[in-house]
Amino acid sequence: MNDSAFKEQFISFVQLLQDTICIGLESFEPVARFRQDEWQREGGGGGRSRVIANGNVFEKGGVNTSIVSGSLPEAMQKQFETTHQDFFACGISLVIHPVNPHVPTVHANYRYFELYDQQGHVVDCWFGGGTDLTPYYLYNEDAKHFHLTQKKACDEVDGSFYPLFKKACDDYFFIRHRGESRGIGGIFYDYLRPDDTHSREDFFSLAKACGEAFLKGYQPIVQKRKDIHSTEEERQWQLYRRGRYAEFNLVQDRGTLFGLRTNGRVESILMSLPPLARWEYDYHPASGSREDVLQRILMKPVSWT
Amino acid sequence: MNDSAFKEQFISFVQLLQDTICIGLESFEPVARFRQDEWQREGGGGGRSRVIANGNVFEKGGVNTSIVSGSLPEAMQKQFETTHQDFFACGISLVIHPVNPHVPTVHANYRYFELYDQQGHVVDCWFGGGTDLTPYYLYNEDAKHFHLTQKKACDEVDGSFYPLFKKACDDYFFIRHRGESRGIGGIFYDYLRPDDTHSREDFFSLAKACGEAFLKGYQPIVQKRKDIHSTEEERQWQLYRRGRYAEFNLVQDRGTLFGLRTNGRVESILMSLPPLARWEYDYHPASGSREDVLQRILMKPVSWT
Repeated sequence: MNDSAFKEQFISFVQLLQDTICIGLESFEPVARFRQDEWQREGGGGGRSRVIANGNVFEKGGVNTSIVSGSLPEAMQKQFETTHQDFFACGISLVIHPVNPHVPTVHANYRYFELYDQQGHVVDCWFGGGTDLTPYYLYNEDAKHFHLTQKKACDEVDGSFYPLFKKACDDYFFIRHRGESRGIGGIFYDYLRPDDTHSREDFFSLAKACGEAFLKGYQPIVQKRKDIHSTEEERQWQLYRRGRYAEFNLVQDRGTLFGLRTNGRVESILMSLPPLARWEYDYHPASGSREDVLQRILMKPVSWT
Repeated sequence: MNDSAFKEQFISFVQLLQDTICIGLESFEPVARFRQDEWQREGGGGGRSRVIANGNVFEKGGVNTSIVSGSLPEAMQKQFETTHQDFFACGISLVIHPVNPHVPTVHANYRYFELYDQQGHVVDCWFGGGTDLTPYYLYNEDAKHFHLTQKKACDEVDGSFYPLFKKACDDYFFIRHRGESRGIGGIFYDYLRPDDTHSREDFFSLAKACGEAFLKGYQPIVQKRKDIHSTEEERQWQLYRRGRYAEFNLVQDRGTLFGLRTNGRVESILMSLPPLARWEYDYHPASGSREDVLQRILMKPVSWT
């Protein structure tokens, strides 16, 4: 496939995936629908943000795509350690915050990046992506199902991927100042460059397999947990844990900080923040409680498969 | 005054100020009281965190002091561009989040820092501090009163201080990714080193004057606004604006990030975060509403005195 056709196919992939995921999530909602905002980027390209709010099942969620190109902002040149100026980036990014504390928050994103020389030839390209689950109450079978779904998707391309990406996910979503993970992980990969072992098409297949596995991983969990009766105490715990989510995203998340520093579209970048979050000084769940069990699980990565 | 006596006096100052401010704030509360946690720092020293929660007037607030010393963490050496290893730091830091959206959130902090050579002589020392007000609804007379109180305190030491520190405050508390200020400012100063013009005692006088002005600035505003009837819409706006407060503190605040990166006591550092905060995608207050008026005011510094 030539460079231009490849790009077009990746663009089609993220846009179709955006449609599929939005439809899949809306299927839980009798009334609430994703609202779309299209935006243009000053330096070139733009995006399509889709946000749902105040649903029966989803309190807030965003499924965004962006296709941007042009001259690389200086901060990006520095981060990528390159002197090349022209770039193309295309990706889908989503974060879903459910109403019910028994339904986990989920995040996923799949992206492709190209750098060009002055003649417009591709001199570098890479893939990034992953998905991770943030439960407020732990259901072992859900964690296992989520990981197995992603493992199966990775295995379709290369059996060595899942263990590597699982570990990278545990490392990446570790909230350093809290000494705990954001959730029970999933997979994470970045800077995957085509080489002798894996072609560009292989990594595209990976993104497709993982992206298509997203609903398979998340939908059954939502279906199982969305109608569980929850108490006010459980709601408060969810809001408290969402504080950690905000902490991670604002203090550590590379994508978020990068977006904010390069004058990205703030509302699209920060759609990942929870609709409501709570901070309580020096709070510790009662020893042995379900809240305590979750918190302990987050302190050390678990092998779920 | 010799070095050792000076340090002792600064320590007494912050501890007494902590007492005075806690008592002053508790005077609004029929029941809620500050709870004290004393903590030790592994490398030397420790602190006294005082936190109030779920009061009638104050939803959450922290008034912390710390007196730490020992070997400078590498990250601090880098930030201060020094090779000296032994340090002493003493300060008070407070953030108060009121219940009523008509009462502003407030922050203040006053600190003193020393660096030593291998013989234990002071080779460098500096002062930092300031206070800033974050209203959810703008009352011009409150903003003016708050600034005038701090101006008066600064003027006691040097008439040139207030304009400089007011501007430094506007610059420091500007949320870059939002293009707006955290609030209506106040004063901010840092790295004030004794020189031919100002002695160490002058800067101590400044900290004392400003610190003692804190209650004079804030108490009358609380008194005036705490019983104003507020609507659910006003509460929602307060929670929304508190999201901005969390964004600033987690993305930009030097003290917060520094504390998190140097393994400070997380619960004391993050006591500044709001008890409850809200994020809503692409929200804009109705044009001409009181919410809109505030938001516009935050986009460009105002001269309040």
